[in-house]
Amino acid sequence: MTERKKLHVNLFEMNCVGHISHGLWVHPDNNRHRFNDIEFWLELARLLEYGTFDAVFLADVIGTYDGFRGGPQTALTEAVQIPNNDPLLVIPAMAAVTRGLGFAATFSTTYEPPFAFARRMSTLDHLTRGRVAWNVVTSYLPNAARNFGLEDEVDHDHRYEIADEYMEVLYKLWEGSWEDDAVIQDVDNRVYTDPSKVHYIDHAGRYYKVAGPHLSQPSPQRTPVIYQAGSSAAGRAFGGKHAEAVFVGGGSLADTRGYIEGYREQARAAGRDPRTIKFMAGAAVIVGSTERDVARKVEEFTALRSVDGHLAHSGAGLDWTRYSPDTRVGDIIARKVPGYQRLIRQYRPEQTVGDVLTRIGGFNRGQFFVAGTPKVVADTIENWLDEGGIDGINLRQFLTPGTAQDFIELVVPELRRRGRYRESYEDGETLRERLFGAGRTRLPEDHPGTRYAARHRAPEQVEAP
Amino acid sequence: MTERKKLHVNLFEMNCVGHISHGLWVHPDNNRHRFNDIEFWLELARLLEYGTFDAVFLADVIGTYDGFRGGPQTALTEAVQIPNNDPLLVIPAMAAVTRGLGFAATFSTTYEPPFAFARRMSTLDHLTRGRVAWNVVTSYLPNAARNFGLEDEVDHDHRYEIADEYMEVLYKLWEGSWEDDAVIQDVDNRVYTDPSKVHYIDHAGRYYKVAGPHLSQPSPQRTPVIYQAGSSAAGRAFGGKHAEAVFVGGGSLADTRGYIEGYREQARAAGRDPRTIKFMAGAAVIVGSTERDVARKVEEFTALRSVDGHLAHSGAGLDWTRYSPDTRVGDIIARKVPGYQRLIRQYRPEQTVGDVLTRIGGFNRGQFFVAGTPKVVADTIENWLDEGGIDGINLRQFLTPGTAQDFIELVVPELRRRGRYRESYEDGETLRERLFGAGRTRLPEDHPGTRYAARHRAPEQVEAP
Repeated sequence: MTERKKLHVNLFEMNCVGHISHGLWVHPDNNRHRFNDIEFWLELARLLEYGTFDAVFLADVIGTYDGFRGGPQTALTEAVQIPNNDPLLVIPAMAAVTRGLGFAATFSTTYEPPFAFARRMSTLDHLTRGRVAWNVVTSYLPNAARNFGLEDEVDHDHRYEIADEYMEVLYKLWEGSWEDDAVIQDVDNRVYTDPSKVHYIDHAGRYYKVAGPHLSQPSPQRTPVIYQAGSSAAGRAFGGKHAEAVFVGGGSLADTRGYIEGYREQARAAGRDPRTIKFMAGAAVIVGSTERDVARKVEEFTALRSVDGHLAHSGAGLDWTRYSPDTRVGDIIARKVPGYQRLIRQYRPEQTVGDVLTRIGGFNRGQFFVAGTPKVVADTIENWLDEGGIDGINLRQFLTPGTAQDFIELVVPELRRRGRYRESYEDGETLRERLFGAGRTRLPEDHPGTRYAARHRAPEQVEAP
Repeated sequence: MTERKKLHVNLFEMNCVGHISHGLWVHPDNNRHRFNDIEFWLELARLLEYGTFDAVFLADVIGTYDGFRGGPQTALTEAVQIPNNDPLLVIPAMAAVTRGLGFAATFSTTYEPPFAFARRMSTLDHLTRGRVAWNVVTSYLPNAARNFGLEDEVDHDHRYEIADEYMEVLYKLWEGSWEDDAVIQDVDNRVYTDPSKVHYIDHAGRYYKVAGPHLSQPSPQRTPVIYQAGSSAAGRAFGGKHAEAVFVGGGSLADTRGYIEGYREQARAAGRDPRTIKFMAGAAVIVGSTERDVARKVEEFTALRSVDGHLAHSGAGLDWTRYSPDTRVGDIIARKVPGYQRLIRQYRPEQTVGDVLTRIGGFNRGQFFVAGTPKVVADTIENWLDEGGIDGINLRQFLTPGTAQDFIELVVPELRRRGRYRESYEDGETLRERLFGAGRTRLPEDHPGTRYAARHRAPEQVEAP
């Protein structure tokens, strides 16, 4: 009998007030308004470490949702991802008070130079001793483009073309620029780094020109664990090539299983072992020790949610209110109105605007949603692990830190009883080892990033067994 | 009688092995090789907080010193600022274990987009509760340019023109985009932010086009304390306009006094109260409890210093070895060879290459250098405060954490006895208050950054008394 999969859990977070549970900032037990405060992050990190979570997964946007009703009013009033702060900068603070918790940070390949980002991630990988992941996104907000000097978003497929070259530059810096034994710290001969083992990358591509060498010496993981969430064709092709962990959201169990199978097929086509990708489903879990507790929570969260907030968010740059309820999403996409690109990822073309509006902000949309006692929640999780084909979840927060606290106090013990949840951080020190097993600290050999590792080595080293 | 000036002290640091004391990484008591380790930074922060330092001042480069002897060999062998890591990312870790210590981070205006940097600094100002400063640089290494897609450095004066517009964009974001009372967190009416008090900046200049709004809500200081170290004409004009604290390095006491007077004149010409600028001299202090201790340290540090390391560093992109000893620095500048731009800042045109080579890496070059017992050191410091016109020092490290430890154990008590050093962090919570007095958390009214604060306010607010 094969061992039963254990659940991987990330807390789905963002350095802002209203991430995805819009309206709930008003709940008296919610701490979202404290996101500017370093103590908010230290407390959260200690809690997740206590619950042996894999990681905190930090989403990000670099613009404002200002399409809905023709301006940023709704986003601001409802605190829909604005105000927000940089996601990378809370990681060192959380790393200072943890030893096992991982950190996944979102960063876009579209607007900032790869050389500086490469050093930022290497710095984080050093400071966390190999506990970081990068969620690769290409950005979708029209306002984000205007914050970086452009008139409008870069075309969706074109963004992935840029992203692909961006990855190449990063792999060259992370994997190829410094050999493992470059830093020798030879005090007697006064040689800190052996210069013959550090290489310029001299990248000259269509979008980037980067000389190198990388400024950071090799960090524990070198390349951070690569996360991705693309669901468009271009996104999945990109992810099939690069992703090690994929964030799956919004579908039913059957849809998700099919999606995962298709995705693994993409990885196989890219020459990779498809088992080296883990799939994390976005999961809404409302748990209570009694049915009554559960019902109370569902009722509270439902009553407080902001439909306007969800509309402003879901449309990205788009204004839903400009369309009649029977307009098909596919027609809006065809018109390429501001914000249309996100629709490709979030909706099916045959859905209508009325459809979208009535479902918005609701909890039970056939996706990974469960409200129940620990037994019910654990049953659902086991079902998604075994029948849905997922490897873990990104736990959506209704309350901070309430949602994580409930999960740790009520769900984790039940999963542990069933052998479905780790007892401690026993599986290696780095995040990659946590996902793929002790000793697997670096990218696997079949990952395209490793191609650039060998390129700069002396021929005899490449050919050695 | 006016109160005697108290000394401001920053520790001069860099997220790397060899910052400016090249060769000393081999010293058995030196911890520089631990710079990748988060504990290195936590220990240092706790030590400086115990010594009530103003701040740790983090230098940075985004390229390699690869001009000397035609390649990066010397820089790598001697660990001259490579390997290095990002300076901003160690700040949150240090902030997690301190309450009073400030953090000054170097960032260049030449290669990365202002919108993203604005959010990074606001995030740091939030996480530290107003304890950050920004050391504005425009970068000088030819290799840095090649890491960001350019063939060679942007011309020196042109860089300052870009920097000036960069500052304008930042002020608009930091000072103008969000009014102080924009975030109201009105639970009853479900209004997080009053949208009428958040503004697009719609900047469209010669180099940048940025829509806004800023993504972060106002942080304690809004604009971080602005540090600068320009000594060229363009640099001083820039600093006279923008700087609140100026890093002065390399000159004699008399030169420094003259420099400071000239700088204050620039500030006056820019319409600012010249007293709102603080001057920090780069200071090399070797202190021991006995003369014998001092002599031993001087001897050790002198014996271990790497002349090659200093040559690779001081020339930036330049190769000193290509010139005869009687070549004038001014002639090299005139030829505009790679790396010439840094020479403008570091040397006088009439100096010869031979001059530079013989003095390199030496300690006593007429600048702020003192080796002695606590009494001798304190006398020197008092003299520089009173006769040199400085307000504080950037303490150069020979050993980490030895240099700071010695200063705290031996010099600080002596300065305190003389009323020249703070007893505790009594002077406000933010770094700007630490420099300019309790209550002065924001930019002063005569600073050009505040011009952009009023611009977006409603007319009745601007005109109100």
